[in-house]
Amino acid sequence: MSPHFEPNGTVGEARLRVRYAETDQMGVVYHSNFIIWFEVGRVELLRTLGFTYREMEADGYHLPVVEVKCRYKQPARYDDAILIRTYMSGLRSSYIQFTYEVLREEDRSLLAEGSSTHVVVGPDMRPINLSDKYMGPFQRAMGTP
Amino acid sequence: MSPHFEPNGTVGEARLRVRYAETDQMGVVYHSNFIIWFEVGRVELLRTLGFTYREMEADGYHLPVVEVKCRYKQPARYDDAILIRTYMSGLRSSYIQFTYEVLREEDRSLLAEGSSTHVVVGPDMRPINLSDKYMGPFQRAMGTP
Amino acid sequence: MSPHFEPNGTVGEARLRVRYAETDQMGVVYHSNFIIWFEVGRVELLRTLGFTYREMEADGYHLPVVEVKCRYKQPARYDDAILIRTYMSGLRSSYIQFTYEVLREEDRSLLAEGSSTHVVVGPDMRPINLSDKYMGPFQRAMGTP
Amino acid sequence: MSPHFEPNGTVGEARLRVRYAETDQMGVVYHSNFIIWFEVGRVELLRTLGFTYREMEADGYHLPVVEVKCRYKQPARYDDAILIRTYMSGLRSSYIQFTYEVLREEDRSLLAEGSSTHVVVGPDMRPINLSDKYMGPFQRAMGTP
Repeated sequence: MSPHFEPNGTVGEARLRVRYAETDQMGVVYHSNFIIWFEVGRVELLRTLGFTYREMEADGYHLPVVEVKCRYKQPARYDDAILIRTYMSGLRSSYIQFTYEVLREEDRSLLAEGSSTHVVVGPDMRPINLSDKYMGPFQRAMGTP
Repeated sequence: MSPHFEPNGTVGEARLRVRYAETDQMGVVYHSNFIIWFEVGRVELLRTLGFTYREMEADGYHLPVVEVKCRYKQPARYDDAILIRTYMSGLRSSYIQFTYEVLREEDRSLLAEGSSTHVVVGPDMRPINLSDKYMGPFQRAMGTP
Repeated sequence: MSPHFEPNGTVGEARLRVRYAETDQMGVVYHSNFIIWFEVGRVELLRTLGFTYREMEADGYHLPVVEVKCRYKQPARYDDAILIRTYMSGLRSSYIQFTYEVLREEDRSLLAEGSSTHVVVGPDMRPINLSDKYMGPFQRAMGTP
Repeated sequence: MSPHFEPNGTVGEARLRVRYAETDQMGVVYHSNFIIWFEVGRVELLRTLGFTYREMEADGYHLPVVEVKCRYKQPARYDDAILIRTYMSGLRSSYIQFTYEVLREEDRSLLAEGSSTHVVVGPDMRPINLSDKYMGPFQRAMGTP
């Protein structure tokens, strides 16, 4: 099955296995866990770009979430191997948007898709602009020339 | 400070206190926890309507989430007293939408707002229609005549 | 049914309702959540003693956990009203132990019991001694003359 | 650095990376998450033995936790690569104990160690005995002749 989205830019791929702790009594993964999986996908995209979110924080850049959306298509189940594909869908010097798709590895069926929007803030939680160290890779990740 | 929204229908009010477990190393509540708080708000609205979600499940109705959105306005902090106000913003016989606002009790400042959309399914996870036992209260909660 | 333990000292009582997010596909509360409920019980005991853990942190005292134990007796279920009873079972100037019992409110049956051991550290995570502001109430909570 | 324990039997090795969601405002991993990591280690040991916990449940065997203990040695931090080593430390036909150590991969320093004790129950949550299909591998995992 072909990927569900094919952006121009870089796609980060993160893999995880569903934990029992993530299921609920409906026998499927509780929906808020997908939002945590988005985080797993996001940090893996950054790693693909050549740095880590830990490094960004050490450099004084934090990316608090200002909006998150998720559409659920099919349930994820205990012990499923999950693939999270992440790409950047928006970028300004103090604003970043990521788009995600969550797939079941086995048949690459789409379980959920969503996005998160972040502002760039300093240690004092006030908006700041990303330095070139990060804007460069992010722009390349966007696939913009 | 006045409430941030005033729908025609019933507003459920749920209260909780932020757990240390819900904070992250930015010193604020990790964003996915608001999605769990939406659940706390939603089940409290049902209780206000005269039944519980446990009872709905015992009657064979499950309400899996098909979409969730959250916009974050201000951080929630450890030990904050939180108020979640919930109302129904959409209703069909096999589809329900809830809208939420998350407030800090102390000054009633708005921390986040969002919505969740649910389908009604039976024990086999196939869509079914809600019986009158539930549609009646839900319609009254919508404030529709 | 009578309480399961009756220490000499102060018993904090915290109440919560089981969240759907806390259940797992066995249809019961996933076991690690009881450890979070211990936290809920512990901070409520502090509140009973006249201060908050937030205040302790603001004063430069942190209480990281160095050991935790829990014995599970009966499952907790979705929407159960839960009572967490907490008392101090050990105290030195840089060491505190709490003991917990988790009850179902409805019939006061014992669901779990356990303990957590904490060291007192400063903002730099090095062991320090509690000041009299906190040692006094803690000693009274221990029921020691 | 050499491993911290060397049992006779099989040691399962599971790896994960610390999620931001798992940290708390002390800047370290919140302690209850180690209990979830124990689960990650345990299911990986089962996989090493040739089957999955999903398969055990499908065969009608559940392993609810009746006791858990954890001693915390050093904090785990955001984005740390974590190694969980798990071995079986107790086995009867309706009772299993696992022992864990949680290491930081980078320097193999010991972050925590603990154990979990499980009873074997059927779908009706009553104790049953494990069949040979599972007792055989478990006995080999124990390193018993």
